[in-house]
Amino acid sequence: MESAQVRALTFDVFGTVVDWRGSIIREGEALGRDKGLAVDWASFADAWRAEYKPSMDKVRRGELPWTKLDELHRQSLERLLDRFGIGGLSEDEKDHLNRAWHRLSPWPDAVEGLTRLKGGFIIATLSNGNVALLTNMAKHAALPWDCILSAELAHHYKPDPEAYLTAAELLGLEPFQVMMVAAHQDDLRAARAAGFKTAFVPRPMEFGAAKVPDPSPDPDFDVVASDFVDLAAKLGA
Amino acid sequence: MESAQVRALTFDVFGTVVDWRGSIIREGEALGRDKGLAVDWASFADAWRAEYKPSMDKVRRGELPWTKLDELHRQSLERLLDRFGIGGLSEDEKDHLNRAWHRLSPWPDAVEGLTRLKGGFIIATLSNGNVALLTNMAKHAALPWDCILSAELAHHYKPDPEAYLTAAELLGLEPFQVMMVAAHQDDLRAARAAGFKTAFVPRPMEFGAAKVPDPSPDPDFDVVASDFVDLAAKLGA
Repeated sequence: MESAQVRALTFDVFGTVVDWRGSIIREGEALGRDKGLAVDWASFADAWRAEYKPSMDKVRRGELPWTKLDELHRQSLERLLDRFGIGGLSEDEKDHLNRAWHRLSPWPDAVEGLTRLKGGFIIATLSNGNVALLTNMAKHAALPWDCILSAELAHHYKPDPEAYLTAAELLGLEPFQVMMVAAHQDDLRAARAAGFKTAFVPRPMEFGAAKVPDPSPDPDFDVVASDFVDLAAKLGA
Repeated sequence: MESAQVRALTFDVFGTVVDWRGSIIREGEALGRDKGLAVDWASFADAWRAEYKPSMDKVRRGELPWTKLDELHRQSLERLLDRFGIGGLSEDEKDHLNRAWHRLSPWPDAVEGLTRLKGGFIIATLSNGNVALLTNMAKHAALPWDCILSAELAHHYKPDPEAYLTAAELLGLEPFQVMMVAAHQDDLRAARAAGFKTAFVPRPMEFGAAKVPDPSPDPDFDVVASDFVDLAAKLGA
């Protein structure tokens, strides 16, 4: 792997940098205690996340005009509140719950690893989360990004190639000078098809202990690392 | 001034955060020593900057398609090298000189003031510089931005209203929740017309000691501060 050519690392965020599932469960449980709700918040978190790809696919197929992720999350939330029989939330309370996605907690190695990687590379998000979501999350979780990049800036959700190519263009780099870092092999394959280098960092607990994804990495990835600190070591940062 | 409503501060960069003139002169003098060039680098810096607004105005009027500032700077540089009789630079040397705009040094109060302001507000660039330029500059100068916003993301240079409105939209905020910080009254007046709050931070030495701009602030600005540390104090950050 000629990592000498790589100038910037772009990171998938949900699942790769932050533990969305544990965070949404925690926020749900806090709301449940406040409001006296008896809800299985793990199922709620999984159901919310299950709406994620189908909602973006509607935008990707042109069935919806460009819609930012905050709004897609909000539309899914309305359906879930119905389905889980959660009533009596004010608009402000729904907004606050929807913005739980702005308050996700990082995996334990993330801040240390990113801080080391920042010494050797430009580090940027490249997420389907909108810019405000990613900016607020970085502030909440002390993620030391050099730059917030998002599918929102291309008006194309990953894995559309425009999402990756727009990020490289905004960084003023050729795709081969950028390495995509993700816990999801489909994201990395799409980045690779757009000319990016690829680093796979499995996050076996992303979907909970009962649903550990197949960890066998595609042999075409340039780097496989166990976490961000290991990635820093492997990239010499 | 109801600063309680303000959630984010967006900063003009060239002249407001960084001393472009001193930095370009310093880079020019280093190049001059290396290559044995006898050039008045203060005049060179002023001439390069004088091309700035006219080159963006061509884009604003639609005479040029969207062109990022790095490219406008490069086109101006070619003309200036001719005009100042600077020959014999390789393409790599010209590129390096052009990227002097990525290596500008902050005013002495900038990092301390931004660090304090970051404790109370989202702090973002809102510059005509392109994203790569601003990202590289932040890394070079340790500017602690939460988010890199740029006219490039709107494909409209300031003072077009789209530049300001796109920034607020990406931050997920209403314009009145965002305060533009700038050393240039025309930038602030355009931000104000787009609904932003305004903070004027005069930088009397921006154009050199011989060309101190009129410091009398428009009475409509919400805050006037002597530097970023004073701005932090005035905004309670």
